[in-house]
Amino acid sequence: MSADEAAAMIDDGMVIGMSGFTRAGEAKEVPMALARRAKHDPLKITLMTGASLGNDIDKQLTEANVLARRMPFQVDTTLRRAINSGEVMFIDQHLSETVELLRNKQLGKLDIAIIEASAITEDGGIVPTASVGNSASFAILADKVIVELNLSTPEALIGLHDIYIPQMRPRREPIPITASDSRIGTPYIPINPDKIAAIVLTEGQDSPSNVQQPNEDTQQIARHLIRFFEKEVKAGRLSSSLLPLQAGIGTMANAVMNGLIDSPFENLTMYSEVLQDSTFNLLDSGKMVFASGSSITLSEKCGKHVWNNLDHYRDRIVLRPQELSNHPGIVRRLGIIAINTALEADIYGNVNSTHVNGTQMMNGIGGSGDFARNGQLSVFITKSTAKDGALSSFVPFVSHVDHNEHDVDVLVSEHGLADLRGLAPRERARVIIDNCADPFYRTALNAYFEEACQRGGQTPHCLEKALSWHQAAQQQGSMRSVAEALISANSEKSSI
Amino acid sequence: MSADEAAAMIDDGMVIGMSGFTRAGEAKEVPMALARRAKHDPLKITLMTGASLGNDIDKQLTEANVLARRMPFQVDTTLRRAINSGEVMFIDQHLSETVELLRNKQLGKLDIAIIEASAITEDGGIVPTASVGNSASFAILADKVIVELNLSTPEALIGLHDIYIPQMRPRREPIPITASDSRIGTPYIPINPDKIAAIVLTEGQDSPSNVQQPNEDTQQIARHLIRFFEKEVKAGRLSSSLLPLQAGIGTMANAVMNGLIDSPFENLTMYSEVLQDSTFNLLDSGKMVFASGSSITLSEKCGKHVWNNLDHYRDRIVLRPQELSNHPGIVRRLGIIAINTALEADIYGNVNSTHVNGTQMMNGIGGSGDFARNGQLSVFITKSTAKDGALSSFVPFVSHVDHNEHDVDVLVSEHGLADLRGLAPRERARVIIDNCADPFYRTALNAYFEEACQRGGQTPHCLEKALSWHQAAQQQGSMRSVAEALISANSEKSSI
Repeated sequence: MSADEAAAMIDDGMVIGMSGFTRAGEAKEVPMALARRAKHDPLKITLMTGASLGNDIDKQLTEANVLARRMPFQVDTTLRRAINSGEVMFIDQHLSETVELLRNKQLGKLDIAIIEASAITEDGGIVPTASVGNSASFAILADKVIVELNLSTPEALIGLHDIYIPQMRPRREPIPITASDSRIGTPYIPINPDKIAAIVLTEGQDSPSNVQQPNEDTQQIARHLIRFFEKEVKAGRLSSSLLPLQAGIGTMANAVMNGLIDSPFENLTMYSEVLQDSTFNLLDSGKMVFASGSSITLSEKCGKHVWNNLDHYRDRIVLRPQELSNHPGIVRRLGIIAINTALEADIYGNVNSTHVNGTQMMNGIGGSGDFARNGQLSVFITKSTAKDGALSSFVPFVSHVDHNEHDVDVLVSEHGLADLRGLAPRERARVIIDNCADPFYRTALNAYFEEACQRGGQTPHCLEKALSWHQAAQQQGSMRSVAEALISANSEKSSI
Repeated sequence: MSADEAAAMIDDGMVIGMSGFTRAGEAKEVPMALARRAKHDPLKITLMTGASLGNDIDKQLTEANVLARRMPFQVDTTLRRAINSGEVMFIDQHLSETVELLRNKQLGKLDIAIIEASAITEDGGIVPTASVGNSASFAILADKVIVELNLSTPEALIGLHDIYIPQMRPRREPIPITASDSRIGTPYIPINPDKIAAIVLTEGQDSPSNVQQPNEDTQQIARHLIRFFEKEVKAGRLSSSLLPLQAGIGTMANAVMNGLIDSPFENLTMYSEVLQDSTFNLLDSGKMVFASGSSITLSEKCGKHVWNNLDHYRDRIVLRPQELSNHPGIVRRLGIIAINTALEADIYGNVNSTHVNGTQMMNGIGGSGDFARNGQLSVFITKSTAKDGALSSFVPFVSHVDHNEHDVDVLVSEHGLADLRGLAPRERARVIIDNCADPFYRTALNAYFEEACQRGGQTPHCLEKALSWHQAAQQQGSMRSVAEALISANSEKSSI
């Protein structure tokens, strides 16, 4: 069927579940056809995906006014603007939860699933492409399935996926994953072939990742973290293969993972969401022996290498539904080391990963909460400042909390590492300010903290100043003057 | 050995793990002896327990200046004061995590465990009393164990406990609990008898719970929640036995659970931390068929009835280590309905369970995070106001976040219920304000929300006013005047 014919099946008000996770494996033809159609035949849908989409699909759908509701994650500039203006309702979710909510009928009924496939088996099984994401449960739970068969995908993709769906409650058996390399399901999504309402052909490519090269700051962060791991091994708290690693998507996490190539560790494993360039660099270097994820998202250069040599990696990678790659129970069982990026952290180690100045959504919480809450070690990394020092990533009081102090064990900036395990909030503050904050803001944070401690409390604060840094950022684009005021007020006090 | 002799084994600087969970089953003689000793022989320790202690032990130890560090939970007024003044470092933890952190050597070494027992088996197995809490792992991980053998406990306690310890990472097998009534371990704590350094006799009693009788407000909250469950059953999202229930400790949660006695549901089960009066009322009424917890905490009257008729309940209750009663993986597997109490919630459904005005610790996060993050339905309940209406429990911006919007599905006050599932923050605000807030504050919250929406964002806020309600509460003991100012500013604007 043509993409236009398939898109015509979608009615106004429908709930659509689409493949796609971190710019990998999204359906490519039907959403574009839908955007075209909407220009002369307006309609609104709820769109669920695995995570972010490539090929500007979220942009096209937003510009065509198709999106009424969107979940559970996105990274598109145009869509972000529509979300923040209140035009699109964005439901930001822990990535492990979306299909659990669907399965339990808490998000209503899924009308149509649109799934990119690299093959369809004789009995109707769908073999995904570069991501599993939520595709398996979307296909199983939807009334109808539109398959986009991508003719350009390498045959070696077949066998790479491991599809397993947790049983219905209340009698669910334990999910039998006990290591990164556990295989517990089928290499395809098993559905009733009668539900396949259309097959649309495509040769579209995934968008390459836009990860930046490591720079001095990100390398410094990597060095601090590797030195910390070395100490942990020495103290007998970790073995030389550490524990399964999870790394958030993006430049900083990628730099940290690349830093492990020259580390003394060996037989590393990964149990993460996204297999990035650094994953394959680690596999190539022999440092890593196995990597489990829900998608493969690569730069153009690394992508060429991997897709042309997929056979070479087949026994060392697996792609799972994101419900399993991010499953809280499995994260706890395996004892994952979770490395995620913070937008900002406060002096007590509460982390904001999503909201600029507490209001404007960046991307979404993604899987960070699945990993940070339940892993053995939860690490958050950030540069100490942004916008050439106009903004401090370490603030008195975060303007939005995605991860509270209970779920943040270690904070790292280019200046150093704060090991927060077993510390009370007042102790956490000293360690964070001294090790991670930029030296200029460090003085201001200390001034705030000292004044707050005089007022008392388990988590001392000066409420009238708590959000003043963000107010300044909003109004003046800089936190410097409010930080300076704190410093000079404090030095006056000390000199009295 | 006498308690004084046993207490003499404790050296300055030691880390002590003690039985006791929600005022049930704490060691009674040795901590008191330690408090006496410290008056002439000062020393400081780190004290870990399951959760809160009875018999004023935290008070006595605080007054004797024994506590340098305390984790993971407490409810004592004297200790709370010392925590908030910064004298005692309080490490507030998810209750499922403490022994996991100890096992992985992230909290240092445990020197001595002090465990109340109802019996010791011939090969040194310790049979706990009214709580398991963290006792099993404390006894296993400590260098030495002091047993307090409580001669007053009923023999029927033997066989009630189910002790299972997760294997060491990285090769941990799935924990095989698949229902509330799963029994997977031994009825005693298996330790090397050589580690038992002392046995101290006691006949001390647990403190009775101080749960208040339900009043009109708490009954109203119960009615809203039961009506919601009825709708869920009708819609096919829950069966008539619902799903395993968890209820936080305290008057409100107890009232809600008691409300289920007159409900249309049947064959209810509980998978919770504390078996309270309401649990036994539900078992007695035939509404509940099984209850799993980590402790039994009862009023004086209910306690008499239960302890004298324990045989009658033996096949219908089990006590587990809190690591398992609160295990994120099992909570997710069973699909628990979690009912916890909020100190305050904001218009977007972020919940503060611990910090008055963002600074002063009440008790601690307890197990609420273990359940709220991972269950099928996360419900938070609160009265709409406190201090005779001077404080609103629904505020523009919570002063501390224990549970963010992702983990709060339903909010209930005496005014009504907000079903937040599948809603974006702006939609959540409307539902929370309209259904849960006190009518006076409702108008003020709407004024705040409207002004914030004009400024935009996924989670709109007016940063300069966000914490003004708490500043007013701190300075004037009331939020009324700041709320009034919002209302009149808004009505002026509307009339222009």
